[in-house]
Amino acid sequence: MNKVAIIMGSKSDLPVMQEAIDFLKELKIPVEVDIVSAHRTPEKMLSYGKEAHARGIKVIIAGAGGAAHLPGMIASVSPLPVIGVPIKSRNSIDGWDSVLSILQMPSGIPVATVALNGAKNAGILAAQVLGVSDTTVQEKLIAFRKELESKVIESSKELN
Amino acid sequence: MNKVAIIMGSKSDLPVMQEAIDFLKELKIPVEVDIVSAHRTPEKMLSYGKEAHARGIKVIIAGAGGAAHLPGMIASVSPLPVIGVPIKSRNSIDGWDSVLSILQMPSGIPVATVALNGAKNAGILAAQVLGVSDTTVQEKLIAFRKELESKVIESSKELN
Amino acid sequence: MNKVAIIMGSKSDLPVMQEAIDFLKELKIPVEVDIVSAHRTPEKMLSYGKEAHARGIKVIIAGAGGAAHLPGMIASVSPLPVIGVPIKSRNSIDGWDSVLSILQMPSGIPVATVALNGAKNAGILAAQVLGVSDTTVQEKLIAFRKELESKVIESSKELN
Amino acid sequence: MNKVAIIMGSKSDLPVMQEAIDFLKELKIPVEVDIVSAHRTPEKMLSYGKEAHARGIKVIIAGAGGAAHLPGMIASVSPLPVIGVPIKSRNSIDGWDSVLSILQMPSGIPVATVALNGAKNAGILAAQVLGVSDTTVQEKLIAFRKELESKVIESSKELN
Amino acid sequence: MNKVAIIMGSKSDLPVMQEAIDFLKELKIPVEVDIVSAHRTPEKMLSYGKEAHARGIKVIIAGAGGAAHLPGMIASVSPLPVIGVPIKSRNSIDGWDSVLSILQMPSGIPVATVALNGAKNAGILAAQVLGVSDTTVQEKLIAFRKELESKVIESSKELN
Amino acid sequence: MNKVAIIMGSKSDLPVMQEAIDFLKELKIPVEVDIVSAHRTPEKMLSYGKEAHARGIKVIIAGAGGAAHLPGMIASVSPLPVIGVPIKSRNSIDGWDSVLSILQMPSGIPVATVALNGAKNAGILAAQVLGVSDTTVQEKLIAFRKELESKVIESSKELN
Amino acid sequence: MNKVAIIMGSKSDLPVMQEAIDFLKELKIPVEVDIVSAHRTPEKMLSYGKEAHARGIKVIIAGAGGAAHLPGMIASVSPLPVIGVPIKSRNSIDGWDSVLSILQMPSGIPVATVALNGAKNAGILAAQVLGVSDTTVQEKLIAFRKELESKVIESSKELN
Amino acid sequence: MNKVAIIMGSKSDLPVMQEAIDFLKELKIPVEVDIVSAHRTPEKMLSYGKEAHARGIKVIIAGAGGAAHLPGMIASVSPLPVIGVPIKSRNSIDGWDSVLSILQMPSGIPVATVALNGAKNAGILAAQVLGVSDTTVQEKLIAFRKELESKVIESSKELN
Repeated sequence: MNKVAIIMGSKSDLPVMQEAIDFLKELKIPVEVDIVSAHRTPEKMLSYGKEAHARGIKVIIAGAGGAAHLPGMIASVSPLPVIGVPIKSRNSIDGWDSVLSILQMPSGIPVATVALNGAKNAGILAAQVLGVSDTTVQEKLIAFRKELESKVIESSKELN
Repeated sequence: MNKVAIIMGSKSDLPVMQEAIDFLKELKIPVEVDIVSAHRTPEKMLSYGKEAHARGIKVIIAGAGGAAHLPGMIASVSPLPVIGVPIKSRNSIDGWDSVLSILQMPSGIPVATVALNGAKNAGILAAQVLGVSDTTVQEKLIAFRKELESKVIESSKELN
Repeated sequence: MNKVAIIMGSKSDLPVMQEAIDFLKELKIPVEVDIVSAHRTPEKMLSYGKEAHARGIKVIIAGAGGAAHLPGMIASVSPLPVIGVPIKSRNSIDGWDSVLSILQMPSGIPVATVALNGAKNAGILAAQVLGVSDTTVQEKLIAFRKELESKVIESSKELN
Repeated sequence: MNKVAIIMGSKSDLPVMQEAIDFLKELKIPVEVDIVSAHRTPEKMLSYGKEAHARGIKVIIAGAGGAAHLPGMIASVSPLPVIGVPIKSRNSIDGWDSVLSILQMPSGIPVATVALNGAKNAGILAAQVLGVSDTTVQEKLIAFRKELESKVIESSKELN
Repeated sequence: MNKVAIIMGSKSDLPVMQEAIDFLKELKIPVEVDIVSAHRTPEKMLSYGKEAHARGIKVIIAGAGGAAHLPGMIASVSPLPVIGVPIKSRNSIDGWDSVLSILQMPSGIPVATVALNGAKNAGILAAQVLGVSDTTVQEKLIAFRKELESKVIESSKELN
Repeated sequence: MNKVAIIMGSKSDLPVMQEAIDFLKELKIPVEVDIVSAHRTPEKMLSYGKEAHARGIKVIIAGAGGAAHLPGMIASVSPLPVIGVPIKSRNSIDGWDSVLSILQMPSGIPVATVALNGAKNAGILAAQVLGVSDTTVQEKLIAFRKELESKVIESSKELN
Repeated sequence: MNKVAIIMGSKSDLPVMQEAIDFLKELKIPVEVDIVSAHRTPEKMLSYGKEAHARGIKVIIAGAGGAAHLPGMIASVSPLPVIGVPIKSRNSIDGWDSVLSILQMPSGIPVATVALNGAKNAGILAAQVLGVSDTTVQEKLIAFRKELESKVIESSKELN
Repeated sequence: MNKVAIIMGSKSDLPVMQEAIDFLKELKIPVEVDIVSAHRTPEKMLSYGKEAHARGIKVIIAGAGGAAHLPGMIASVSPLPVIGVPIKSRNSIDGWDSVLSILQMPSGIPVATVALNGAKNAGILAAQVLGVSDTTVQEKLIAFRKELESKVIESSKELN
């Protein structure tokens, strides 16, 4: 079964990352959630990254703040697409630190970066990746998009 | 056949985007390359985005500079994963404009953003997405990664 | 009758955009207000932009936050002057994202950008544009400017 | 006759501002070009700004670099729409200084700001403002836009 | 009698600027406080700047926020040293706008810029300027500096 | 005799600082030039700062790049007005480092900061400070300003 | 006995710096805490820096905000490793000022800079420096690191 | 024998890092130089970091550009002090990416960060760390500092 792994550097990142979990669950896509710290559990992190695809994980979403190395390091050991969520942590320099340390990966090791605190978009992107080979998921995404559209149309009507 | 579309806002973006094309060709992944401008051909852009998945495109890579709207607008009409390449164009404010206008997408419409001028990584990421359901591609990526590793090991030996 | 359209990407932008509406109403300039999202209603957006001038709209004010594509996309399909209001949304990187993705438009497609959250100035600018061919509006603006001056003079007197 | 004034703080700004002049001349819109420095000719500047509309000027384009006060100060004494062009001058801090000192005008005194060095867009915007009440100009702009589109379509064909 | 003028763009700047007033009063240096807006009272501003030195003003302190043109414009018409205080106003982009539009003056027209919201330092600097030719003021400044030193020494003792 | 001291952290700063020297010499104001490094000659620096006013120096201009501590440290031991010139040195982060480490002085110890590489303005500001009590200098500054104005007027004529 | 000195520019920095004190005390490393201001007690600062190593201090941790000169100036007179803690003070420009004025030291005088408000890491780094020649300290650090790891493992278990 | 390890992510970083090597060699401190890439040789990197202290390495200097993860990841597995050198690589966003991804490490895992491209200072800092327990090294550093001072004194004399 196609599964998405959602990992984060610290339990304090969970409120932000929850939006990715919720979105994927809503689409009935199985998720696996874990705390994996690049800096505090570097060996667990490497094993996690190296073994994920063999365990049936298809996409990895990794959220981290500050000098955020988790997404890039996971990407360095996995052949899977890795989606990075920059998190604005306490003592962050306005979020620039996590954005740049996730986005500016060197040639050879991409991380698919989404907006600051943009965990929901990470969930949607993971679903889009699965949707490439799974028509049911793609159809759900098309339906989700329709709903977004309807809400805007409705709020336009309410206004007028 | 699984195809990747590589589009860009202007012909002047081609030298940067070429690295994505070359990488995918090296992996024998079929690509389709086009100039599609969000601001100068808005209707072609929307049609392009809406029809891509029906035509067999599986991933779209979109590169643009300045107030770079192409990746986000394509993402708004396609159920496919869209990879955005921020390009540092002439008169750019150090690349911040393209980075932020591609990365900071609102909730609901993700763009998988890579580093400034990071077209090669966009190509690799597209291959990783295809690799989710295509073992041959995934194996090629694992081989590519091994090669990267070997080159570093070799340059380490040369140094010593 | 000369009308100004005020559109925004989401209902949550209304408190900021209200200042433009209020200013124009005060000057008895007819306004039309709508929610039009570049990313969630891309086709409505294009139609809106393409048809506005034919419907008697003379100026379009568009407010948006984050990777703010609404003003630039409207500008790409309308011959009218488009005024962009960068909005500092939740999870914005200090407003830089909306400022740069509205301001840094490529050659050929201008957006008249005002200050972050500067909707009142967008309203004034729209009136100035109408005032180019409508002496009554221009006179009202001159009177408004006089009033601003008087208030400063008065607060100077109060101080001393 | 509807005229556009194009002013700049120093002769060294002319190469950038020339694109605005050229665009407007191409559209047969009369232009008046002058060097007016906020800091070196403050009184000429105020007179210029105060008298422009009475002399038949309909739109003012003002370009300046560094702590760029010319557009905002002209806007403070004229009822006309003022378009500001931030110029990246020598010793500029990457253009941020001129961008922010033109864009971030206080409530009451808007400047329609375009991209860094974006003088051509300033010219187009000025034409759009005139086009609000002058159908011939608006039609020329629609034709210009068509041409932009054709060039993209052509370069797309060349590529394929 | 040597006098310092303290002006600001709006009454809302007074809480910040009060620190300059208080410091100078403490040193028994006469001050004159006024609201002078570059954008809302441009002509009063120019007269104020042109006449200040003839009225016995020796130094001008000017505080302003956003696209802060007051210090630079006053400097353009006065032979006096002008001290600029960048103020972090509502809707400021983190204070960068006022800092850069005061600091980055073009060659020929300096503004002595102090830290963001640094009105007290502006007061001290004004006193230092007067102290160049007034030994009593210079001695007071030396005493003030001693006091600062004593406070640090004392807080060091308290800690230990 | 009223003298201005011009110091800098390294001989490599001289090409930038020369503009201050030249301006003051043109006005026949005596200058004293020296290399004083906050980090490489900290004790000489403190002595220099402490003794300057007793030696007849009236204003100190200090230029430095990177983590530029010279202006602030000199200001901490001298009762004279200290003018800081941020210099964009090799390996500078776009000049932001020297600008912020000179400008953002804590309450109690001002540095009169001028624009990045703005040594000429530092010279003018020093002359303005002397001009507060020396009418001859003030008159020369008024004449210099007139000349600036004339040059702009002339370049305006040439253009037309 | 190997001692670490922890100094800061103002008592208001103590809440941030306390984390360094606490960490070192936990490891039974003797600390000496003092208020030493680069700008308000420049001579005490130089003496402090020059004499520290002779008094048995092995590492100096210096915290400061704004134009933070304390770490760099201490480094300029001491042969000891100096660790700088950038503090986000009131009126800071988002912490950039203290970060850049501590980090960007000129060639010859390093400051070991840690993250914004990162005093705990400064304490750990000081212990690592002592650990180079003191196996007991190094073992305590290895144990501390293990604990960090265990906490992450535990929070991972709790989650699942 | 006390050794310093100098590692970098790519051979292209060698010209910058050479300054650290040269400085340490000048002081007769043994160095070991290697290419170790966080992203291309993640496992070699972890082994390298874990084993360094057992092999007699006392300090690790790690240089990297872009999303620079090498210093922080080495720090996560070694009890040694790790000095990070942010390198301004091609396609860097003005060096901000490497600075922030090295500096902003989370609590628990410090990296002693030096200035952008500041490899020489990294070498000096490493020597200072060794000097804590090795008087010969500390004396060499004091001599080196004296030399820096002499050069400034000399260039001051040449100037006058």
